[in-house]
Amino acid sequence: MLSTGHYLILSSLSRNGPESRSELALRLGMSKAAVSSLVRDLLKQEILCEQTPVHGSGRPSVPLAVRAEAAWFIGISLQDDPAIVVLTDLHGTVHDRMELPRHADLETCVSSLCDAITHLRKGLRSAKVSGVGTALPGFVANDRQTCLACAALGWRDVDIGGVLSKRTGLPTWIENDANALILGEQLFGALRSSPDFSVIFISNGIGCANIVNGRLLRGYAGGAGEMSHAPIVTDMAHALPCRCGNRGCLETVASLLAIGNAARRAGLPGEIAELARLAAGAHPEALSILHHAGASMGLATAHLIQLIDPSHVVVMLDPNLRDGIYGHALQRETESHILRRPVSRGMIQFRDFEPDSFACGAASLAARYFIFGPDGV
Amino acid sequence: MLSTGHYLILSSLSRNGPESRSELALRLGMSKAAVSSLVRDLLKQEILCEQTPVHGSGRPSVPLAVRAEAAWFIGISLQDDPAIVVLTDLHGTVHDRMELPRHADLETCVSSLCDAITHLRKGLRSAKVSGVGTALPGFVANDRQTCLACAALGWRDVDIGGVLSKRTGLPTWIENDANALILGEQLFGALRSSPDFSVIFISNGIGCANIVNGRLLRGYAGGAGEMSHAPIVTDMAHALPCRCGNRGCLETVASLLAIGNAARRAGLPGEIAELARLAAGAHPEALSILHHAGASMGLATAHLIQLIDPSHVVVMLDPNLRDGIYGHALQRETESHILRRPVSRGMIQFRDFEPDSFACGAASLAARYFIFGPDGV
Repeated sequence: MLSTGHYLILSSLSRNGPESRSELALRLGMSKAAVSSLVRDLLKQEILCEQTPVHGSGRPSVPLAVRAEAAWFIGISLQDDPAIVVLTDLHGTVHDRMELPRHADLETCVSSLCDAITHLRKGLRSAKVSGVGTALPGFVANDRQTCLACAALGWRDVDIGGVLSKRTGLPTWIENDANALILGEQLFGALRSSPDFSVIFISNGIGCANIVNGRLLRGYAGGAGEMSHAPIVTDMAHALPCRCGNRGCLETVASLLAIGNAARRAGLPGEIAELARLAAGAHPEALSILHHAGASMGLATAHLIQLIDPSHVVVMLDPNLRDGIYGHALQRETESHILRRPVSRGMIQFRDFEPDSFACGAASLAARYFIFGPDGV
Repeated sequence: MLSTGHYLILSSLSRNGPESRSELALRLGMSKAAVSSLVRDLLKQEILCEQTPVHGSGRPSVPLAVRAEAAWFIGISLQDDPAIVVLTDLHGTVHDRMELPRHADLETCVSSLCDAITHLRKGLRSAKVSGVGTALPGFVANDRQTCLACAALGWRDVDIGGVLSKRTGLPTWIENDANALILGEQLFGALRSSPDFSVIFISNGIGCANIVNGRLLRGYAGGAGEMSHAPIVTDMAHALPCRCGNRGCLETVASLLAIGNAARRAGLPGEIAELARLAAGAHPEALSILHHAGASMGLATAHLIQLIDPSHVVVMLDPNLRDGIYGHALQRETESHILRRPVSRGMIQFRDFEPDSFACGAASLAARYFIFGPDGV
């Protein structure tokens, strides 16, 4: 059983990387004796380890680090079909993964997930899994157990967290897919030290999440970051109907699905690699579709930057989009519609879209509990 | 000199209204003895007062309240010309106010503000002013002393806080105008219990600020809420140049200034009451200008709601805009471009634009310091 003091040490080492007892005492405003005593417990429980001593002018300083193998977590992504289940360590590294069909029927869904979890747990031998996280494309209640609504699965008020927890005997957390993604970035990613950054992913759908003041921006009804249904095509003669019931949403022009549909309507191949190849060869209609999609994404990104002012916007997308006119139009349109500030260089960071990121983000929900404790999640 | 414990009591009574010692002890997780001792100090210093006892089944309970006259604050608004300086009490009530020309020259500006402050302090007789807050239309550094950039005044890296503090001998805080407005709302307004709400004001310019997770959303570079320069007119053939250097910003169509310009270009009166009267009489061009402006404002508000998901959006505007086609188009366009959620009724609250609100918000910056203490501002 860990105390608040233990969690302080763990969170600090997780956020700031390895530090010595003296450095920890200084950073946390605690006495060296108190830090040493807490560290002793954490070393005994094999949650921390001592790294190679660093020799300086005085006594050698021994950096302490969180042990990757101190705890194991299951992360589930229902973001797309197939579902992905990963096993990660306490550094967020994936040690094993499975893909399985994503079932909309709750019982079938939970059974197949539990089979996968059992399989992954077996591979661990004597080590134990500490918790399970799940990412799904929908709204999640503040209890982080209940899926309030998920169009892709047809779920409404489904206590997926409760059911998974009961069946696995493990603590479970549920999150919206984009939220899980950014929480994983915040815990394990390169931007972990930034208190204000945003993540957008572009796939068949579009998702967005924001860390502000160091915390996830959930919003009043858990709907923050829903840029996918923000109005982008405002000329109603050209606005396509969206599955949400409105017209002209970002998703109707800038997602992979929308691009494929637009291409097929123009008699072009709907597959993105093929369309990008045509555009690279200066095919006018392919260029036009991808430019319109990328520029629309840029407009929405400009709204985000003007309203939320993040230090960075990580955009995860298909390399075919990133490297061609879509990525170019996205960047250009964003930059031409934001207030110029000295800090805006490198603000947009393109990254390959990796479906496993959602499962890793989901696993990080459980890792957070281990690192920050029950009050710090 | 107040301690952390005193500030806990003060903040709790300010946030939740009058409560008895027992209620405070329960809410703050403190012993009744500890609460009684802290309350004794605050009563002695005449910061709290006891209200009429409430008789129930047991001993009568005595609600404690923050005394309005326990402290006085100066709030300065440089949001528009004329500048406004108010004197408020600890409940945010204005007791005196002055208007003066807003000078861009720092020395003239500070001198005239200091004269006004001296005048307002004299009216207080024996009571003392505890601090000064200033709201201005620009970017403010995280130290809340330096104006990084203010186009309206032509200021860049101006230590207006430091200068005012030196000249008045009072602690001073500077904020962006919209931020000061929402911080005043959060401390003294009807939405003080909501952890997630937004404020938009529509005047010659447009401003916006957001409280998320109970805190002001400042953003990485202090630029959050700059919806005024978000891209709204995306058809470049119709996008007007904006003073920021870009084209098609919200401000170029939806602000009072933009509406006046559009009206004059169409040979109509630029004064809003007159234009609204024409629109009410079904004048087609007046209707078209006001509809386009209101709908554009609605589009930008839809982006805000999709990205930030506030419980309420308070929109402060001229009654001539609110009651006519502008207000109607704003409301309608917002509603038709957000995801439908059960909680969206009454989400948009129209309120009259009152220039004094900025000065009151500015005064609340100093009041925060008095109520929450040096660490809680």
